Amino acid sequence: MYRTHTCGELRLENVGTEVTLAGWVQRVRKLGGMTFIDLRDRYGITQLVVDDNASADVVETTSHLGREFVISTIGKVVERASKNSKIATGDVEVIVNKISVLNKSEIPPFTIEDDTDGGDEIRMKYRYLDLRRNPLKKALALRHRMAQEVRNYLDAQGFLEIETPYLIKSTPEGARDFVVPSRMNQGEFYALPQSPQTFKQLLMVAGYDRYFQIVRCFRDEDLRADRQPEFTQIDCEMSFVERNDILNLFEGMAKQLFKSVLNIEFEGEFPRMSYADAMKYYGSDKPDIRFDMRFVEITNDAKGKNFVVFDSAEYIGGIVAKGAAEYTRKQLDELTKFVQRPQVGAKGLVYIKYNADGSLKSSIDKFFNEAELKALAEKMNAQPNDLLLILAGDKKRTLSALNDLRLEMGTQLGLRDNSTFAPLWVVDFPLLEWDDETQRFYAMHHPFTSPKIEDLELFSTDPGQVRANAYDFVVNGVEIGGGSIRIHDSKIQEKMFDVLGFTKDEAEKQFGFLTNAFKFGAPPHGGIAFGFDRWCAIFGGSDSIRDYIAFPKNNSGRDMMIDSPSTISEDQLKELTLKITQ
Amino acid sequence: MYRTHTCGELRLENVGTEVTLAGWVQRVRKLGGMTFIDLRDRYGITQLVVDDNASADVVETTSHLGREFVISTIGKVVERASKNSKIATGDVEVIVNKISVLNKSEIPPFTIEDDTDGGDEIRMKYRYLDLRRNPLKKALALRHRMAQEVRNYLDAQGFLEIETPYLIKSTPEGARDFVVPSRMNQGEFYALPQSPQTFKQLLMVAGYDRYFQIVRCFRDEDLRADRQPEFTQIDCEMSFVERNDILNLFEGMAKQLFKSVLNIEFEGEFPRMSYADAMKYYGSDKPDIRFDMRFVEITNDAKGKNFVVFDSAEYIGGIVAKGAAEYTRKQLDELTKFVQRPQVGAKGLVYIKYNADGSLKSSIDKFFNEAELKALAEKMNAQPNDLLLILAGDKKRTLSALNDLRLEMGTQLGLRDNSTFAPLWVVDFPLLEWDDETQRFYAMHHPFTSPKIEDLELFSTDPGQVRANAYDFVVNGVEIGGGSIRIHDSKIQEKMFDVLGFTKDEAEKQFGFLTNAFKFGAPPHGGIAFGFDRWCAIFGGSDSIRDYIAFPKNNSGRDMMIDSPSTISEDQLKELTLKITQ
Repeated sequence: MYRTHTCGELRLENVGTEVTLAGWVQRVRKLGGMTFIDLRDRYGITQLVVDDNASADVVETTSHLGREFVISTIGKVVERASKNSKIATGDVEVIVNKISVLNKSEIPPFTIEDDTDGGDEIRMKYRYLDLRRNPLKKALALRHRMAQEVRNYLDAQGFLEIETPYLIKSTPEGARDFVVPSRMNQGEFYALPQSPQTFKQLLMVAGYDRYFQIVRCFRDEDLRADRQPEFTQIDCEMSFVERNDILNLFEGMAKQLFKSVLNIEFEGEFPRMSYADAMKYYGSDKPDIRFDMRFVEITNDAKGKNFVVFDSAEYIGGIVAKGAAEYTRKQLDELTKFVQRPQVGAKGLVYIKYNADGSLKSSIDKFFNEAELKALAEKMNAQPNDLLLILAGDKKRTLSALNDLRLEMGTQLGLRDNSTFAPLWVVDFPLLEWDDETQRFYAMHHPFTSPKIEDLELFSTDPGQVRANAYDFVVNGVEIGGGSIRIHDSKIQEKMFDVLGFTKDEAEKQFGFLTNAFKFGAPPHGGIAFGFDRWCAIFGGSDSIRDYIAFPKNNSGRDMMIDSPSTISEDQLKELTLKITQ
Repeated sequence: MYRTHTCGELRLENVGTEVTLAGWVQRVRKLGGMTFIDLRDRYGITQLVVDDNASADVVETTSHLGREFVISTIGKVVERASKNSKIATGDVEVIVNKISVLNKSEIPPFTIEDDTDGGDEIRMKYRYLDLRRNPLKKALALRHRMAQEVRNYLDAQGFLEIETPYLIKSTPEGARDFVVPSRMNQGEFYALPQSPQTFKQLLMVAGYDRYFQIVRCFRDEDLRADRQPEFTQIDCEMSFVERNDILNLFEGMAKQLFKSVLNIEFEGEFPRMSYADAMKYYGSDKPDIRFDMRFVEITNDAKGKNFVVFDSAEYIGGIVAKGAAEYTRKQLDELTKFVQRPQVGAKGLVYIKYNADGSLKSSIDKFFNEAELKALAEKMNAQPNDLLLILAGDKKRTLSALNDLRLEMGTQLGLRDNSTFAPLWVVDFPLLEWDDETQRFYAMHHPFTSPKIEDLELFSTDPGQVRANAYDFVVNGVEIGGGSIRIHDSKIQEKMFDVLGFTKDEAEKQFGFLTNAFKFGAPPHGGIAFGFDRWCAIFGGSDSIRDYIAFPKNNSGRDMMIDSPSTISEDQLKELTLKITQ
């Protein structure tokens, strides 16, 4: 037997017993003729002591131990003289009677500590060593717990987890599909799913009215910092439901996760905000509502003072940074530079300091007198001690820049603490997006998203104004999930294809096997999918999904550890009847 | 609201209440001026009644209903005059007040009944309709329940479910790998995993001492009747364990599944049988032990009577079919034909009838007198009324044919009931298999399987005799899982590569990233993987895994429903720098 206890288990009540432990040598210290070994496993660290009474054998073995050696030891649990309150086993230590090396270790290329000295690249390459560190162990344990809780909740709600295929079909729209050549059907390809969307809708047609799956999805696209070519979704679909049935059920799931994983309880409903309001007050379809700082539009209030930036602006609006009136010249200059960065895109920044003594000072004193500044401050609900930050210009770009500015101010003022959580539903998204380049509408979600019934008439008159029966789940400004009620009425589906510019033939070719299935009795249905990697990261208080994936790929889609992708042999290519053209 | 209750929910206690139901029209019958509608959903069937008091509207709508229409209805629950004990809602019916068609249906291409009139092909094509049938609904519900129970058990045992990548690396050994061309890394390929074997061993190196995953695996090989190109495994690995730790823990899991899913309790340990005994007594490494009928070898007892078939045989052995002495001539002829089929491969069949009156009659009366037959019968522990069936010849082939014969007799005598379960561990498999063609040893499982410590010396003298520390889990003659203790000692690993004929360079190239990881402190570890599709099928009492997969592929690896694999566009190929050579 390799162990009777784990390295995280021993307490004062075990004092006096003989135990067997196994694990990795975290470190070895010699002190006054004694040797102390920190022995580590998944569960914690226990201190081993080789003292004066140790046999020659034990002393000899101990003298050769190095970091990350795997050992097994038998010894007696004693109370420590100087306790270590930082670790759970810190009240006790184990006096070693026997020790054996189960496996040696070369010196690891970086330290196995919470704050390692290893860079990104080397840690990706030796991922199996990086995974020994506490932050990653916690991340994967959190992920396991989340998945388990999701399944328990949905199981209790009568959902069936149904596995859908990974080898599916590439569609003309699937420019980002990974494809898989078939050996048995030469010249033909499967595709890996970007999501199980089609299959979950077919399951609704098949009568499985509560489906879910925690499922891998694949997208072959240029990877931004926080994307992975393979990622995991919590994919869900329900029949005979309306929007609120779905929101309520998954709000319940989110609450259970908050409670069981983070011990945070939410009372009442999560806020629900229309897309229109989200854009108006936050300039974003995924507002971070951990803090208020809503936009106030002052387009009509700020014009006519001969300040050409305002007078020529389509939109003028600002935010109130509470208690920030004492921002220095330098800080304000830096904020100006921030909004002028190309990715933010404002031309300049107007500030008004509403000083504690009630006086006002601004960057537009040339155009606005103190009373006029005060009027603006009042319009914006500012108080003495506040800093008003105002942007003006083209509406769309200004709202977007104000969003960046607001988030930056939230960060600077410490309003975006990662252990605080502000969930939000954003609803009533536009159904369609107009693309100037191709001069056509695109489905904002996908072509099966249902329009809101009350907007149906707009379909013929002003399609761009039609709202979708779609919703996103947002936590702390990060979109964690999204979904919609689907179209189950073939007439509306035809109209949708029509607006999207598909001929009947094209629609049949691309979506035929779904629309054909719908001819045999499709129930009203809708669903939602959550980005599981991201949800785990948010819950873990991290910005990076990579720490929550055991074996992630880098920004070029490479697995540095196994060095993949890689070339394959000529024989393999030949069998697949493929040739590489470069 | 589409429904207040499901179609499987209403009982006598609901009588008098108004309910809203939704579902599919199973059938419509007119009887004495009334119309009866069987309304079906995932949960059951409820009878709706349109009676004399129904409004013109309701009558009109009802008159147009067809099979598989999706409807919603409001009505009052009443007690039935003639109850239907076959369905759970059979005590009540719903008198329709309102009815609306949510969606029409074309006439389905086959009947949605437990025994459908649809052939295999058409049911694969319209899988979403086939999935509406009860047997498939039950199969998928069973699968969901199994997965949930597996996760609950392993979670309670401290296992973490850790997702491993699907886009991995093709190895020279991976002739059956599906490969995935990378767009970002042109000319290079990922491979889809045949199993997460490497990754789970790396997780052990990383210190995650109890890992599991319910995970999809892929194999591009010629498909036999009951194989799928993608299949699901329950994949598990543990550190600091010996064989019995693993067997005990997963025996516990199996028992929990038997109990919670099938309500069957097993007392005591599952039998454990060595590979050698399995071959000796059953001629198979996965014996069906629902019934006994072990082989008895009579090689030495049956020779010397001038019967050349026996006298020239390497092996003579037989089985005793209890109570089958009254088998007719015709039945015995058919058994002879059975064993002579090429896939069974025996030359002929010898029988001895041990009649109820104590007399004996055999097909070898010319060579054996009654006393001699009786001696054989006694050697084989036969009783009056039994039928003895004996095969002779080359040992390996005869054992294999006897296995087929035994299973056939088990079936004929009704000893292989699908609702009876006989689990079994088969242990101590040979480590290596000799291949005559290539004149070398192959690893019977994989090159990381540990030999039994007590057999280590045989490595140098007689490698073929080395037993592996490997085990299979068998239920009713079907291998459901298998695994082994892995090699964690680099010296033994080198020896293993050596016996397998790998040069150091080859071993480094093929297995380098695992053996390199092992240099940094690999713990002793081992694991097991279960074929989840097959386990579900066995529990469901079915021979076919296909019914337990929502969207299976046919024997050519095609998904008939979505018509995949398929050709992809020239643009897609170009982006991947690929060309099809045929």
